Amino acid sequence: MRIGIYPGSFDPVTLGHLDIIIRSSRLVDKLVIGVLINSSKNPLFTVQERVNMLKEVTKSMPNVEVEAFEGLLVDFADLKKADIIVRGLRAVTDFEYELQIAQINHKVNPRIDTVFLTTSVEFAYLSSSVVREIAMYNGRIDELVPKEIVDKVYQKYKDIKKSDSI
Amino acid sequence: MRIGIYPGSFDPVTLGHLDIIIRSSRLVDKLVIGVLINSSKNPLFTVQERVNMLKEVTKSMPNVEVEAFEGLLVDFADLKKADIIVRGLRAVTDFEYELQIAQINHKVNPRIDTVFLTTSVEFAYLSSSVVREIAMYNGRIDELVPKEIVDKVYQKYKDIKKSDSI
Amino acid sequence: MRIGIYPGSFDPVTLGHLDIIIRSSRLVDKLVIGVLINSSKNPLFTVQERVNMLKEVTKSMPNVEVEAFEGLLVDFADLKKADIIVRGLRAVTDFEYELQIAQINHKVNPRIDTVFLTTSVEFAYLSSSVVREIAMYNGRIDELVPKEIVDKVYQKYKDIKKSDSI
Amino acid sequence: MRIGIYPGSFDPVTLGHLDIIIRSSRLVDKLVIGVLINSSKNPLFTVQERVNMLKEVTKSMPNVEVEAFEGLLVDFADLKKADIIVRGLRAVTDFEYELQIAQINHKVNPRIDTVFLTTSVEFAYLSSSVVREIAMYNGRIDELVPKEIVDKVYQKYKDIKKSDSI
Amino acid sequence: MRIGIYPGSFDPVTLGHLDIIIRSSRLVDKLVIGVLINSSKNPLFTVQERVNMLKEVTKSMPNVEVEAFEGLLVDFADLKKADIIVRGLRAVTDFEYELQIAQINHKVNPRIDTVFLTTSVEFAYLSSSVVREIAMYNGRIDELVPKEIVDKVYQKYKDIKKSDSI
Amino acid sequence: MRIGIYPGSFDPVTLGHLDIIIRSSRLVDKLVIGVLINSSKNPLFTVQERVNMLKEVTKSMPNVEVEAFEGLLVDFADLKKADIIVRGLRAVTDFEYELQIAQINHKVNPRIDTVFLTTSVEFAYLSSSVVREIAMYNGRIDELVPKEIVDKVYQKYKDIKKSDSI
Repeated sequence: MRIGIYPGSFDPVTLGHLDIIIRSSRLVDKLVIGVLINSSKNPLFTVQERVNMLKEVTKSMPNVEVEAFEGLLVDFADLKKADIIVRGLRAVTDFEYELQIAQINHKVNPRIDTVFLTTSVEFAYLSSSVVREIAMYNGRIDELVPKEIVDKVYQKYKDIKKSDSI
Repeated sequence: MRIGIYPGSFDPVTLGHLDIIIRSSRLVDKLVIGVLINSSKNPLFTVQERVNMLKEVTKSMPNVEVEAFEGLLVDFADLKKADIIVRGLRAVTDFEYELQIAQINHKVNPRIDTVFLTTSVEFAYLSSSVVREIAMYNGRIDELVPKEIVDKVYQKYKDIKKSDSI
Repeated sequence: MRIGIYPGSFDPVTLGHLDIIIRSSRLVDKLVIGVLINSSKNPLFTVQERVNMLKEVTKSMPNVEVEAFEGLLVDFADLKKADIIVRGLRAVTDFEYELQIAQINHKVNPRIDTVFLTTSVEFAYLSSSVVREIAMYNGRIDELVPKEIVDKVYQKYKDIKKSDSI
Repeated sequence: MRIGIYPGSFDPVTLGHLDIIIRSSRLVDKLVIGVLINSSKNPLFTVQERVNMLKEVTKSMPNVEVEAFEGLLVDFADLKKADIIVRGLRAVTDFEYELQIAQINHKVNPRIDTVFLTTSVEFAYLSSSVVREIAMYNGRIDELVPKEIVDKVYQKYKDIKKSDSI
Repeated sequence: MRIGIYPGSFDPVTLGHLDIIIRSSRLVDKLVIGVLINSSKNPLFTVQERVNMLKEVTKSMPNVEVEAFEGLLVDFADLKKADIIVRGLRAVTDFEYELQIAQINHKVNPRIDTVFLTTSVEFAYLSSSVVREIAMYNGRIDELVPKEIVDKVYQKYKDIKKSDSI
Repeated sequence: MRIGIYPGSFDPVTLGHLDIIIRSSRLVDKLVIGVLINSSKNPLFTVQERVNMLKEVTKSMPNVEVEAFEGLLVDFADLKKADIIVRGLRAVTDFEYELQIAQINHKVNPRIDTVFLTTSVEFAYLSSSVVREIAMYNGRIDELVPKEIVDKVYQKYKDIKKSDSI
């Protein structure tokens, strides 16, 4: 059985991420979406919220699982018995960083290979940080994130403003 | 009437910025320099100081205005009835980031287009952060920023050192 | 009056070219599409055919002219009293080449500046050579070139095969 | 059954190609190596020679087939009922070209996706043209191509020199 | 006498750094490794620890010195009477940043030139931050840093965890 | 004694080449300019003309020699007992190609290292092919090539036109 890992922060999941999830779920027998617990960054959504959002948008895909992880990606891949890491590529600077990570991961654990999918053109400009930037100023994000997620992002910023003004 | 926006942090304005301002002011009937109020960054100069410096170096250009703005660039462009956003390009990594921003802005407001000018070769290496780095250690900046700005940058670092030592 | 030049080989004109033509025609009072007579390359369409195709797809745009030219672009721009050269940017390698050309042109004639528009995402992958490659093998090109052009491209390859088999 | 296509000119096959073949053959149930018949280029080895060399170096891999093809890659993929095109990535300029091809292929046939593997670091510098350049001047190529191929490349250049001197 | 400066943070020194040190020490009569005291970053090792580690791994190289410095690199180069700055290049984004720094340094002090060596392929993926990331999670780093350094890095993270848990 | 090789086609030598020659001649005890005899390309100037032009523009530099070569660069470097290959870098696409060549050369002959100098900003746009393109159409090249070369380039195109019209 081919098992793939699709790692990321997903803060929040975008239509670009969903595009990669749908396409890579066809390439493997089981796809594990690994949500990174990055203690040094200050995320908008908690790890649990991000896991829940991903579970909601992938609930109709029987071979997709969602799980949080901490530490080295290759250790998580090993734990999940995955042999493939899936990454989406958008741009040249993405590519160089991803290449570096793929090579160091292959060196640390040669059993695991990384395959890259290129983001579909209509999502080539899209990233979680772009979504956060626009939502913060109440711009429209309904063509940027899955429809189940739109209101959750706006609500999050309302909650933040409320707690800031206390 | 063609109205263009040239957005940036201008912390401080450099000769590279001035080169783009002069050349883009010829392409439009009115050029609005938009000084970004970025609350998450810690700028060297206040927004008001940056606006004043830009007004000083552009005072002989009748079709150039300077204004501070907050929020999404496309909203500011809409408010100023601008149809063109002007950006300077220096390098490949610049280009990719700028391309992403241009495409997301066009998606958020299709009426607005982004045009790019390439920085003249003699300023290709230049950025506000390079100027700050050199001025902090008392290096020479008189070929890097407009002559009206040179002493203001040195003075700012003297003020900072004085207040640090209190 | 602001006059712009949009130079290229247009062998054949694509939807990506048309996108740049429409958007740049709004930035200037008159846009001259300059069709390069490149004697060292062996084009699919003659210069006259390329000029005619461009005239057909721009016939509803009152401020757009089409003209063939030979020699240095800056000399052609000078002849047409243009002060702006318009170029479309797709990718990083495009960008570097275009940057080089823009800087040499500015050095040869400092009166003329180059502005860049980024190709809309849906045409980011598109080039005349991709169109030729697909059409040669009878692939579908109706989402790649203006509808007036589709049959002309197929017909051209039929003519070539016929003359090859004589 | 997942079927993948690995297309190329393989003129001649290098250790970098072999690395991608080994790794991608694990990702799919059947891997078809497609040897491009490119009539416009003047290859060193004939298509039949290139197919034979690939068959020789992959003879111990039960799920790998080698076949020549002409025309559009997506048509060949369709014919072979493949849903995945495999490509190796070495450098940034590779990446941009590959991205363009992947997107046009996806547009022409949305059923087919392209996955990218990054060349292992020890082969990052390697290409068929580098091998040809070195072999032409009798440099050492035994760490650049599979051992079964080394003498065939030297012999080919001997044959060429002999026929040139007649 | 040709004197070169090899500047960096070396937090910690990697096998990639050591490769550049060995190769550049052959290009000059004296090589000064300049360890940057960067007060705005929060390094893993103190400047003194980084200087000591570099002295240990270069102790058999008679023409290599190690020294900490603060402020502008060109001022440090001037102080050491160096005419060459040596930099290692790994990737495209490295290259652009390095190019900018080389040009600004040349402008500030035209006597000083920058030469670039490209990192050997086996270290192309390697950086101090990759080492820190892996060591933090107890991954293997013995093929990433000089053997004298391996235990120092693990020990540093043990010390940090101990002090965090107090 | 440190001996360096600066290889190229120099068809014709530009001010960008001369800038690299002057700066690299300071880095080594002897600099050998290697003029590539590339039988597959069709150069504007013969090898002997290119060697003569380089000798003329470097006649005041006592440690610079000019010599034609054919075959692998590493073999030529070996013959000249050089341990350093010098290359100028202008752009990202340059960089990738140069990196590939440097690594293959180092693999073929590990004794030889490649150092890179970045072209001074004022020559960043400059190449022999740009010079040829401009001179062919009688554009000004006096800020692009050494003054001794200007008339030779114009004369060459006059000779070509004369012989074409016979």
